[in-house]
Amino acid sequence: MTMPQRPESSTAPGSAGTAPAQQAAQQANAPAQQPSTLPVRPGLEGFEPYGAPQLALPVLLNVNENPHPPSNAVVADIAAAVAEAAHGLNRYPDREFLDLRRDLADYLHVESGIDVLPPEQIWAANGSNEVMLHLLQAFGGPGRTVLSFAPTYSMYPEYARDTLTGWVAGRREDDFTLDVDHALAQLAEHRPAVVLLASPNNPTGTALPLATIEAIADAAATSGPPGPDGGPTASVVVVDEAYAEFRRTGTPSALTLLDRYPHLAVSRTMSKAFGLAGARVGYLAADRAVVDVLRVVRLPYHLSAVTQAVARAALRHRGALMSQVATLRDERDALVEWLRGQGLTVADSDANFVLFGPFDNRDAVWQGLVERGVLIRVVGPPGWLRVSIGTGEEMAAFRTALQEVLGL
Amino acid sequence: MTMPQRPESSTAPGSAGTAPAQQAAQQANAPAQQPSTLPVRPGLEGFEPYGAPQLALPVLLNVNENPHPPSNAVVADIAAAVAEAAHGLNRYPDREFLDLRRDLADYLHVESGIDVLPPEQIWAANGSNEVMLHLLQAFGGPGRTVLSFAPTYSMYPEYARDTLTGWVAGRREDDFTLDVDHALAQLAEHRPAVVLLASPNNPTGTALPLATIEAIADAAATSGPPGPDGGPTASVVVVDEAYAEFRRTGTPSALTLLDRYPHLAVSRTMSKAFGLAGARVGYLAADRAVVDVLRVVRLPYHLSAVTQAVARAALRHRGALMSQVATLRDERDALVEWLRGQGLTVADSDANFVLFGPFDNRDAVWQGLVERGVLIRVVGPPGWLRVSIGTGEEMAAFRTALQEVLGL
Repeated sequence: MTMPQRPESSTAPGSAGTAPAQQAAQQANAPAQQPSTLPVRPGLEGFEPYGAPQLALPVLLNVNENPHPPSNAVVADIAAAVAEAAHGLNRYPDREFLDLRRDLADYLHVESGIDVLPPEQIWAANGSNEVMLHLLQAFGGPGRTVLSFAPTYSMYPEYARDTLTGWVAGRREDDFTLDVDHALAQLAEHRPAVVLLASPNNPTGTALPLATIEAIADAAATSGPPGPDGGPTASVVVVDEAYAEFRRTGTPSALTLLDRYPHLAVSRTMSKAFGLAGARVGYLAADRAVVDVLRVVRLPYHLSAVTQAVARAALRHRGALMSQVATLRDERDALVEWLRGQGLTVADSDANFVLFGPFDNRDAVWQGLVERGVLIRVVGPPGWLRVSIGTGEEMAAFRTALQEVLGL
Repeated sequence: MTMPQRPESSTAPGSAGTAPAQQAAQQANAPAQQPSTLPVRPGLEGFEPYGAPQLALPVLLNVNENPHPPSNAVVADIAAAVAEAAHGLNRYPDREFLDLRRDLADYLHVESGIDVLPPEQIWAANGSNEVMLHLLQAFGGPGRTVLSFAPTYSMYPEYARDTLTGWVAGRREDDFTLDVDHALAQLAEHRPAVVLLASPNNPTGTALPLATIEAIADAAATSGPPGPDGGPTASVVVVDEAYAEFRRTGTPSALTLLDRYPHLAVSRTMSKAFGLAGARVGYLAADRAVVDVLRVVRLPYHLSAVTQAVARAALRHRGALMSQVATLRDERDALVEWLRGQGLTVADSDANFVLFGPFDNRDAVWQGLVERGVLIRVVGPPGWLRVSIGTGEEMAAFRTALQEVLGL
């Protein structure tokens, strides 16, 4: 993990961004030239680039990565697949990536027990954040609203901002569950074009019961903004299942609801369970009509031939990769139990991370862990901290460090 | 090259996109459920996904690809670099991709003779179309305008549409050059946030003289939309040099102007000269203040660790790859001469393609070539056709086929 030297300067439009020496040089070359003011889009002033703090520490439990590097067998298969693809890299990639879509449909069939979807019902992009961008480019925009329920994934408002879509956050209960009556009232009040439901939720780990998603999807059939003829439209309900593979036994996937709701989309990622955060592959399953609109807003050839090859190679190893998931689930459940045993409050987790607290000074706890070589994340409601599930050794280091910091 | 079976259905909001049988099944499961109408964003109705027609023909001269596949040495280096990166794919990539930015800066230094820029002045994304998206997300948006000069690259209006930026196309002269007085009048009239100048221009192959770019950049220092305080801002001038490596001797790059204009950005791609269209790597050089705004609007981790590794491996082989460029330039110049010898009009080209014509029925000429196994592109003003520069064998096949079709 590198520590990029990120510029700290503001990007406010008032700053010309040229150092005095450089300005002087410019003026020497072209005396009449004044430093220009950039026409930064209104709304971007003062924003810093998104990203978790990156520190080079021995135990990295801050961004919900899978701690297991790809096995030598996976690496070899990826390298061979890329070598094969590389012979044709002078040509543009298959812009419909149909082979990858078929492989993803097959994987979802195996993982969630749903029928094999046709490739026309699968979409993919460079990370599920690009999938979300496509969704909001297709269905959001000025005068429209995306609704979610906080605390939830901190990137969601950024997707809204990037697509000029209004952002409304309803609330989750104190135990981070979602009250259906509240959710339906929010739909009726805001008539959102898109509803974003993270399940399991980040940073809380909370999975939504299917009944909750069904109730929302039922109401969403006519809760969208007025259509071009003034008639009702649906809200597109996006269930963000980035962490779904880590769900506990008996927690179903919203994929099982797809055939009932043409306005439902279920997004997934290869970053977490597959341990491929570095490869940037997110995807979704939805009705073909939803996917067809995404095809209009995507940039052509957005998925490189190399990305397609890497994803397909990893999918061939799904058996071995999924067995790691079971190990991580066990680590997670053991950690929840241990934290509760220490007298801490812990949110039920169906993900590969755990939210725990509360602390009067969570920043001090975070700093104490950092000083012991353990990086976790300050995120979520005040007082809470989030720790990702690492290897057994990493979790032991975390437990030891936390006991020291808290004086347990 | 594959032939994806693209759905032909419209994505208009009135179409629920569910086949009758599927609707019946839904109704059997949930009798009260009505097919919902998707809230497709206004402005997207009726659009089809962008993309050149793809046909599986022996000679593909339609999308300005480099005809030379990566050599075995390049393939081996790419595979080795990806294998190394693959061992760490469970971790997120370096979201600032500083090593790649340094390598790109070094390449621009060698290719264009400019000083080595610091990495903070380089940006990259998944294809130069994502670079353009970032630029318009940063500086465009509702109520703002992007100005270009037609005929030019057909994706530009799509970038504007995707970012809700107004699109204004001034005109090029009959010989596809750009009249400076006209350009300056357009700037004064439209006060664009962004000016897009393709040089060499696609589909015409026309490079802009530096004096033209300088005149526009001088005026652009204060030609942008009003700033937050009502004061003047610059128009960001983007010179799209996707094909710059193919420019004829003596044609300079706009990179040489960078240190004089803090509102100038010069974009490049590895798709063309480097023969890496399948790898999706575009980049730009600009003042650090411009790059800093792009860092705000980019999705975090938008460039995968694999993409970074592939690009860096290819850049190590720049010597061999650039020698191919010289060969392609020679093929291009020979083709221009040959076409003129046949009595056709040919636009001067600094790119790896040639626009030629005029034809009363260019579609018939295109179809005649297709029937002889040669795929070129119907693009540009009425009557013109564009052919990409392939290998010597491919160009011979093109010449033979064209002679047959035209009865020469």
